[in-house]
Amino acid sequence: MAKAPAAIAVSLGDPAGVGPELLAEAWQRRAGDDAPWFVVGGANILRAAAATRGLDLPVQPIDTPGEAAGAFARALPVLGALDGDYCPGLPDRAGAHLALSSLDAAARMAASGQAAAVVTGPIAKSRLADVGFSHPGQTEFVAEACGIAADDAVMMLAGPNLRTVPLTVHIALAAVPQALSVDLIVRRTRIAARALARDFGLARPRLAIAALNPHAGEDGRMGHEEAAIIVPAIAALQAEGFAVTGPHPADALFAPRARATYDLALCMYHDQALIPLKALDFDSGVNVTLGLPTIRTSPDHGTAFAIAGKGIADPGAMIAALRMAAACARHRAAA
Amino acid sequence: MAKAPAAIAVSLGDPAGVGPELLAEAWQRRAGDDAPWFVVGGANILRAAAATRGLDLPVQPIDTPGEAAGAFARALPVLGALDGDYCPGLPDRAGAHLALSSLDAAARMAASGQAAAVVTGPIAKSRLADVGFSHPGQTEFVAEACGIAADDAVMMLAGPNLRTVPLTVHIALAAVPQALSVDLIVRRTRIAARALARDFGLARPRLAIAALNPHAGEDGRMGHEEAAIIVPAIAALQAEGFAVTGPHPADALFAPRARATYDLALCMYHDQALIPLKALDFDSGVNVTLGLPTIRTSPDHGTAFAIAGKGIADPGAMIAALRMAAACARHRAAA
Repeated sequence: MAKAPAAIAVSLGDPAGVGPELLAEAWQRRAGDDAPWFVVGGANILRAAAATRGLDLPVQPIDTPGEAAGAFARALPVLGALDGDYCPGLPDRAGAHLALSSLDAAARMAASGQAAAVVTGPIAKSRLADVGFSHPGQTEFVAEACGIAADDAVMMLAGPNLRTVPLTVHIALAAVPQALSVDLIVRRTRIAARALARDFGLARPRLAIAALNPHAGEDGRMGHEEAAIIVPAIAALQAEGFAVTGPHPADALFAPRARATYDLALCMYHDQALIPLKALDFDSGVNVTLGLPTIRTSPDHGTAFAIAGKGIADPGAMIAALRMAAACARHRAAA
Repeated sequence: MAKAPAAIAVSLGDPAGVGPELLAEAWQRRAGDDAPWFVVGGANILRAAAATRGLDLPVQPIDTPGEAAGAFARALPVLGALDGDYCPGLPDRAGAHLALSSLDAAARMAASGQAAAVVTGPIAKSRLADVGFSHPGQTEFVAEACGIAADDAVMMLAGPNLRTVPLTVHIALAAVPQALSVDLIVRRTRIAARALARDFGLARPRLAIAALNPHAGEDGRMGHEEAAIIVPAIAALQAEGFAVTGPHPADALFAPRARATYDLALCMYHDQALIPLKALDFDSGVNVTLGLPTIRTSPDHGTAFAIAGKGIADPGAMIAALRMAAACARHRAAA
């Protein structure tokens, strides 16, 4: 018998958001074969958040990640004494501090191997920035905790119907064409392909690279980036042995028959990747960071302060993030 | 009793493409309450194309649009003697000539009111250009036949799950930001809103305007077009009494709950509109030209030369285009 993998460390997210209630709901809906996980801090907040959804959440305080597996079947393991008041929809500095401390501790446990993976609850970047968070997002924060350059951590969005990587992310649309380069596409696609092999059990993933311009530029009549950048990047990746196709006209790339032909769509900009993902998999999208020495996933939604504590937030993406982290950890352990 | 509306004129499309076989299939699958329609030319081609799908298509030659209604229940009415050989997958100049003649005649019958609407079969623009077609597409051709400036004809894509208008269309992505203006957004949204009222029975259509930049620019941190162009356009439209919201972050705009809040999404560029439409409604998308004195629809797919004559092309979009044209004609007649 293989040794049971370590438990998954989960950060609380902003305590005023939907993170705590979704974690309570996810534990309540745990299946017998779910990998064990624990939350870093927030025992009182988790219990209070559970109550807003009519759940009586048993919490088991633990001191080390190793205690989580034994406790998980009967109670939600919560590591450490970090805690605060539950004020859904009313974010404050104390809550931002707690969210940041929980994220920091959970990321370090995964980076050090004490935890099998880290799942991060939703935070509000602007609120965490007020208490010293200087990263563009949790992806870069976790990358740094792992000693990886932020540029080598690749964000993938994954749902039941689609996996997609935006090759550029939080920049103006007008800045996208000049942000693209052969090197960027080759480097990030390579990281993504290797992670799909290692963590998703896809030995030779089929990679579809989207065009930038409508109709893939129609032979240069509507933009030159396909010929100048994307086609050479695809040739370089093919020469390295990757199963890459494209540039594909983006409008047709996410239709059902097209989706059956690839394992991952690599997109040129944020909305090109996230429009189809959210259209198809809105309540079950998972944000996965590829290229890390550990595994990191997150539900693909924000704090949703406006509906926190109202019992209506959908736990689908949180549950999917926990299960995907566990599946990736199993693949990596077996590799 | 209201007088029965005139029949719908349908152009054959390129005879080497999937147009003829899909028209045969659409007639075969007609419902008892379908409005009558007729094809301009191509009797032999339609019969031969039908045979590739195992259909024995009865064709009724007619000389005027008025004869179509009486014939439609028993046979596919075909107006005029234009015809050619059926060579699926092998486009040639004779076929391009036939497609252009059929399109020209069908558009003129609709423009003159002899036909209730025009449905255009798929053509290959580059092939028609070889025989004198100088328009960017059929939308502009039909607009000119109606005496309307191409700029005042607005393309809408409509499926069972989504209606969307791309405010810019066949230009490079890098050219999109400078192509946008308050005037462009206001003018085209106004045309679209009035057409939805007149032709779709939506007295006060709910219009959702997408942002250009990710996260709607996050207060200018990722692009200024929202503040400089889109917000003022929305204010101007609201001042005119239109039910307009936005700018909405585009990634969330096509999720199921968001789609329930509007009748039409107005998008800043081609793929922003067509990615969600084709992801959600691939085999049933209809291209509608708004703002014309007549009604024009088309299936939202091309000639598909590669699969023509193989019996596998899906007739869903063609049938949807015919039914949408009929529904629009009924709405307009009742208005």
